[in-house]
Amino acid sequence: MPTYRLTLSYRGAAYSGWQRQENAPSVQQTLEEALARLLGQAVRVVGASRTDAGVHARGQVAHLELAAPFPERGLVHGTNHYLPEDVRVLAAADMSAGRPAGFHARKHAWGKEYVYRLSRAAVISPLDSLFLAPLHGPVDLEKMARATENLPGRHDFTAFALAGGSHGQPFRSIVAVRWEEEGEELRFRVVGEGFLRGMVRALVGTLVEVGTGKRSPESFAGLLAGRPRAEAGPTAPAHGLALERVFYPPEWRVEGDPVPPVVI
Amino acid sequence: MPTYRLTLSYRGAAYSGWQRQENAPSVQQTLEEALARLLGQAVRVVGASRTDAGVHARGQVAHLELAAPFPERGLVHGTNHYLPEDVRVLAAADMSAGRPAGFHARKHAWGKEYVYRLSRAAVISPLDSLFLAPLHGPVDLEKMARATENLPGRHDFTAFALAGGSHGQPFRSIVAVRWEEEGEELRFRVVGEGFLRGMVRALVGTLVEVGTGKRSPESFAGLLAGRPRAEAGPTAPAHGLALERVFYPPEWRVEGDPVPPVVI
Repeated sequence: MPTYRLTLSYRGAAYSGWQRQENAPSVQQTLEEALARLLGQAVRVVGASRTDAGVHARGQVAHLELAAPFPERGLVHGTNHYLPEDVRVLAAADMSAGRPAGFHARKHAWGKEYVYRLSRAAVISPLDSLFLAPLHGPVDLEKMARATENLPGRHDFTAFALAGGSHGQPFRSIVAVRWEEEGEELRFRVVGEGFLRGMVRALVGTLVEVGTGKRSPESFAGLLAGRPRAEAGPTAPAHGLALERVFYPPEWRVEGDPVPPVVI
Repeated sequence: MPTYRLTLSYRGAAYSGWQRQENAPSVQQTLEEALARLLGQAVRVVGASRTDAGVHARGQVAHLELAAPFPERGLVHGTNHYLPEDVRVLAAADMSAGRPAGFHARKHAWGKEYVYRLSRAAVISPLDSLFLAPLHGPVDLEKMARATENLPGRHDFTAFALAGGSHGQPFRSIVAVRWEEEGEELRFRVVGEGFLRGMVRALVGTLVEVGTGKRSPESFAGLLAGRPRAEAGPTAPAHGLALERVFYPPEWRVEGDPVPPVVI
């Protein structure tokens, strides 16, 4: 059974998220249907990240097993032929040749990078509004950056997890994080070994409250010790968030992959 | 009759272009209908640029006359309330106070800046594909830049005009132009006093042919002397093009406007 690794990109607006579910279109189902049409067989794909409803991906990774080899370029362009234009296979790699057996997109990922984009514009241009969430009122970026300094390391992120998301294992390790400023845009870029459901958006919603002065940079640190969800800020809108890329150890990397250590 | 200047932004995909026309939704009509709902009166808007079907605008400018004064912020947010999310009023300014009478968005503009965005990616991410057109195969950017050096100045752009677009006046002045490279993206940025219909897209389509080696940088210069349309290259797809901004002389500028001389 040859295993293939797909790199995927999608706009999240039309989907209930990555994960297949009843009565709602998911990216996983959309991709599986396109693959089935191309290959003439039912196909199951496993994604590295279960992106939420409305969340975008620039570099999601998934794997699938096929009964017989299929050309990599054919897998890219053939699948894209059957996909709607808001989902694209960017690359495909046969993971069977010259590697350990059994590549698994989620289990073998050592980390992921997410970017949350905010706009300080009074009115956001429709050229940006699909991907940037509004920031209402002025924020003190220095305070937000100060609070953010507490993030790297291993913490109990219960305060930042959607109900039912942590499965009782609320500890996650953040590797690197930074705020970027470009014109009216503010970007929150974070690399972690793993994330709880809704975690990045809850971090952003809470850090924005630090920026507006609603809470102090110092109080933010206290939330990283397993405080209840209600003590943190709101969940920022889904459309500001994108899964940028997924990191793998050397044996699972393919051409074009980022190589750790990650400098963001 | 107070005159208002609106700064507008829109995604072009759903529209037949700026200009109102029979049996096809235009940005102008969409805007006029939203204004009519806000103001309770029929309103006519005049745009600085007649952007074509599918072409975006980051900073289109339009003017309208009202029977009575209306608060600027109310005009922005009230109109946006009635607009679809792919069209937005970014700013409104009362042009009646302390200025010469009779501001006209198109007649008083001294120039416009357009940006055409191309992607060299084998597959374009859906996060970019609404705004970037594909570039098939490798291009020699140095050759494209060399051909582009011929553009500044006054030329007969007949070779780059859609039929019926020039009205027998095919001379236009290009003020500044450059290619920008950022990762897999190539951007053609051009400022001119005016443009014929389809001109920027025909320039891009022809310059790409220079880049792929289909025509020489030297032959490009010859096209600027009123050659027939058939001698130039194809019209590049509409969705790669955006009207970035419109330039006005000092008496018609408002807060936030770019001030010439334009350095692009």
